[in-house]
Amino acid sequence: MNRIGISVNKGKPKARVVARQLVWLIEERGAEVYLEPDIAAEMDRPELGLPLDQFPDRVDIVFVLGGDGTLLGIARRFAKSRVPILGFNLGHLGFLSEAEPDSLSSAVERVLAGDYIIEERMMLDAEVIRNGRVMETSVALNDVGIAKGSFSRMITCTVSMDGAYLGTYSGDGLIVSTPTGSTAYSLSCGGPIVWPGLQTLLLTPICPHTLTARPMVLPPDGILEIRVSSTHRDMGLTIDGQLGYRLEVDDIIRVSRSASVTSLIKWKERTFFEVVRKKLQSNGVEDGGWEDKR
Amino acid sequence: MNRIGISVNKGKPKARVVARQLVWLIEERGAEVYLEPDIAAEMDRPELGLPLDQFPDRVDIVFVLGGDGTLLGIARRFAKSRVPILGFNLGHLGFLSEAEPDSLSSAVERVLAGDYIIEERMMLDAEVIRNGRVMETSVALNDVGIAKGSFSRMITCTVSMDGAYLGTYSGDGLIVSTPTGSTAYSLSCGGPIVWPGLQTLLLTPICPHTLTARPMVLPPDGILEIRVSSTHRDMGLTIDGQLGYRLEVDDIIRVSRSASVTSLIKWKERTFFEVVRKKLQSNGVEDGGWEDKR
Amino acid sequence: MNRIGISVNKGKPKARVVARQLVWLIEERGAEVYLEPDIAAEMDRPELGLPLDQFPDRVDIVFVLGGDGTLLGIARRFAKSRVPILGFNLGHLGFLSEAEPDSLSSAVERVLAGDYIIEERMMLDAEVIRNGRVMETSVALNDVGIAKGSFSRMITCTVSMDGAYLGTYSGDGLIVSTPTGSTAYSLSCGGPIVWPGLQTLLLTPICPHTLTARPMVLPPDGILEIRVSSTHRDMGLTIDGQLGYRLEVDDIIRVSRSASVTSLIKWKERTFFEVVRKKLQSNGVEDGGWEDKR
Amino acid sequence: MNRIGISVNKGKPKARVVARQLVWLIEERGAEVYLEPDIAAEMDRPELGLPLDQFPDRVDIVFVLGGDGTLLGIARRFAKSRVPILGFNLGHLGFLSEAEPDSLSSAVERVLAGDYIIEERMMLDAEVIRNGRVMETSVALNDVGIAKGSFSRMITCTVSMDGAYLGTYSGDGLIVSTPTGSTAYSLSCGGPIVWPGLQTLLLTPICPHTLTARPMVLPPDGILEIRVSSTHRDMGLTIDGQLGYRLEVDDIIRVSRSASVTSLIKWKERTFFEVVRKKLQSNGVEDGGWEDKR
Repeated sequence: MNRIGISVNKGKPKARVVARQLVWLIEERGAEVYLEPDIAAEMDRPELGLPLDQFPDRVDIVFVLGGDGTLLGIARRFAKSRVPILGFNLGHLGFLSEAEPDSLSSAVERVLAGDYIIEERMMLDAEVIRNGRVMETSVALNDVGIAKGSFSRMITCTVSMDGAYLGTYSGDGLIVSTPTGSTAYSLSCGGPIVWPGLQTLLLTPICPHTLTARPMVLPPDGILEIRVSSTHRDMGLTIDGQLGYRLEVDDIIRVSRSASVTSLIKWKERTFFEVVRKKLQSNGVEDGGWEDKR
Repeated sequence: MNRIGISVNKGKPKARVVARQLVWLIEERGAEVYLEPDIAAEMDRPELGLPLDQFPDRVDIVFVLGGDGTLLGIARRFAKSRVPILGFNLGHLGFLSEAEPDSLSSAVERVLAGDYIIEERMMLDAEVIRNGRVMETSVALNDVGIAKGSFSRMITCTVSMDGAYLGTYSGDGLIVSTPTGSTAYSLSCGGPIVWPGLQTLLLTPICPHTLTARPMVLPPDGILEIRVSSTHRDMGLTIDGQLGYRLEVDDIIRVSRSASVTSLIKWKERTFFEVVRKKLQSNGVEDGGWEDKR
Repeated sequence: MNRIGISVNKGKPKARVVARQLVWLIEERGAEVYLEPDIAAEMDRPELGLPLDQFPDRVDIVFVLGGDGTLLGIARRFAKSRVPILGFNLGHLGFLSEAEPDSLSSAVERVLAGDYIIEERMMLDAEVIRNGRVMETSVALNDVGIAKGSFSRMITCTVSMDGAYLGTYSGDGLIVSTPTGSTAYSLSCGGPIVWPGLQTLLLTPICPHTLTARPMVLPPDGILEIRVSSTHRDMGLTIDGQLGYRLEVDDIIRVSRSASVTSLIKWKERTFFEVVRKKLQSNGVEDGGWEDKR
Repeated sequence: MNRIGISVNKGKPKARVVARQLVWLIEERGAEVYLEPDIAAEMDRPELGLPLDQFPDRVDIVFVLGGDGTLLGIARRFAKSRVPILGFNLGHLGFLSEAEPDSLSSAVERVLAGDYIIEERMMLDAEVIRNGRVMETSVALNDVGIAKGSFSRMITCTVSMDGAYLGTYSGDGLIVSTPTGSTAYSLSCGGPIVWPGLQTLLLTPICPHTLTARPMVLPPDGILEIRVSSTHRDMGLTIDGQLGYRLEVDDIIRVSRSASVTSLIKWKERTFFEVVRKKLQSNGVEDGGWEDKR
């Protein structure tokens, strides 16, 4: 693995500084490095420029400089390619970002030496179906959320799995989450923490009117279909809390396991439990940030 | 109490039928009855017509035909007058509506005989303050809700009570509820059931990111100020889940106990506990319906 | 499948009545039937007597007459043999019992015709280790519970998975549950509902002191070790809520997936979701009954 | 207020050290100080000895050196006398203990100068009634808990308020808590945080089987009667998590607001909200410690 692409959250000045250091560290060790063309130009290294869409073909690994939110956007973008991603955490402690900005040299060393593990994380495919036609499709690493608007009183979601009626949830909405997404929005809504390597779909109702409605851990091959209705027509679909689509009454949202996965670079010595303990005791659930601002 | 005003949910045909029966039952017993002018005209009894706004001056009691949602709207409208309200429940079992449509005659009898109790229910005053100016004011019987929109990732509410910093809640929003409202939206969000005769403010975070954020039962004389912010400017305020105002970043929502109360007519023999048990085991939390559709 | 063993909850008179009917229905169709010797004697059919321990060798299927609690006991007893079990539900609606006493004839017919599916349910092995020695072992179909006594203030459970520190839970205790057990005690403690065919371990803290402690869905091959301590020495281990062992400070409870499974006979047309909906809206979580009273 | 009694948690060596410093600081300022006789003897100041039971008659204020648990015990002991109590927190941050051991001099100064407020905290009276006879009575500052034993499958509590049937709770038990106790055991069981100056009874089910069972905030003058039953006879009552009584089937536990209150010394500048925020983010709910070990 000696061709490294660097993707930078352009809204974070620190990301540019770290990128510059990484370029130096990578080249010093004789490996190749690529940057997005505008960032490369800014650094007076235009020869390192490579459009983001060509990263999967030309690099062995992508370094993402930002936070979990930036990584979510890159993960969706590179979902098909399976190129491994290493997140450098420039904000709060993250669930997804593994490397810390104060140990850049060590991180580069480990990557080049192959001293890491790759975790394959399950992703979701979501489709919005209106009058029998697929209107939107997206892949998600964390979750697919269906929610009422701020003025809407409630949304009603009628759910089936593999054609069998599962249940009807009236309330603020519904989340279908991967294990990776279990520590994000679903956790705020009372969902369990799911070990990230598991293959399951997690269905978490958001503030349901019926007190017996509870989070459900479902088989990964189940195909969920969720028909939405509401008296107020103010309903939305969100992907990883970052992308939004407006929904209409009787839209069906179909959610299933994606053929794509996200390959995350992880250090061997840091356990998921350690991150959970630290994260939950400090600043709460994951919160990726709206819209990939890269 | 022998001057009775009848208010009808105009969206429910059954309400008109029941109104007609009630007029007959009331007049038969020699009491006076009033209807809104359009309903009176429909019944060919234009002489019974009285604009809703004049009800408080001319009637001793208001019969509300609809459901809990219809009653919430009337309660806000007559908040200043304290005229007692008897709800006739034409939908699901209600927390607020006491009389059942299959015992109209008995209900009229009891009211005229004074065979009931009046429960005074605490209400809230809510103000939206922008740049130091009060932009909106409203009274609420159930709750004042502050919520993110469907695409918004989160809203941050910084709360103080009587000027002392209480806490910061990031998530889907926040509810300030009366005891009456504790069995409505707050309950879906994990809030406790509060005995309706108590004087308290209930503060319930909606899907908070911080897992240590919990519902709080606060003193009734506390003045809550909630400053909202969000990266997405898609935030709304709702009153009793029925009226909505758009909020802007740095708006302050001030919520305090209202000088107004709602006087509900209740039968002596039906306990609050009985309603809670039946309601929660059947169709879930109270759900008043958006907008007073009368 | 034409050798059927019948196991009867001896505390339920109705079970004996149903057993008699089943014997008749089975023999009428030319299949073989076995009963425990004392029940066979009671029916004046001593030739049908077969000690329970010999059932696995001589029958193709076991009919369990009682409720979910009776079935749990039989499932543990026959864990090694994998003989399929069909529960006849003589009490409340059950999660495990599939056949209803009012359609005995149809149930016998379906079983003999092979008109059913067999669900293999994951089980747990639990060991109590004291000073390095295994003191007790048991298999569980629902859950392994570790709990403080009624006077004890709290119990502290230090948990590791595969030797990696997972977390420390102080409170009323901890449950390790199978997917099957997710609708039993764990659900009362805030755990999710897990699809019964999944392979996972569910770890649910009981009333934890730390509000960030949450239920966790863990990989099935994880080996959990739970070291217990308490200032009051009043701690217990329960298996399926039915068998109990007293624990001492510094005992380690090791829980892992069992090589044994329970094979449940299920009708094709009844979905898990249907049972969940009905059960939760009526009499709450599963409650198998203490001690196998057969 | 210039007669100060000091009560020491005898299990904490640090408490003795602090007591010695306090004696010196108090006497230096010309005020009177009393100690329990054995502690006074240890300090070679036998003339300061005063049996704990005589404190209420001879001192104006009691300093409690220990933690919240030590204070709970003193509060129950001095419930009738209303002598104000100032807790010195020698362990974790406490909800009840106000003074810190690193500012003893300032604390003495403030007390002698009257620079504090007194918060009156509501207490509970609990009675165990068996076959119509009162078997036990106790006062509680935090809570009255009714719980199953570690092997017991469940306990069923049938609750009435003022003779009206409230509900039946099957599960691990039930807590009746004061506002002060809302941040202790009840919080672990999903109860709300109640402002400590309010007058309410908080009823919190412990892991209820019925998912619609929720915490209830009840009027302070309500008289709660809780009839317990269980198939296993292993049930206990606890007072403030510190004192325990064994319960029998059909025992009735009557809980009501006590005529006694606890008068806590509080500094004006520290708000309840501040303590809640710090406490919940660090070491979780209050945990007073079993048995007053003084």
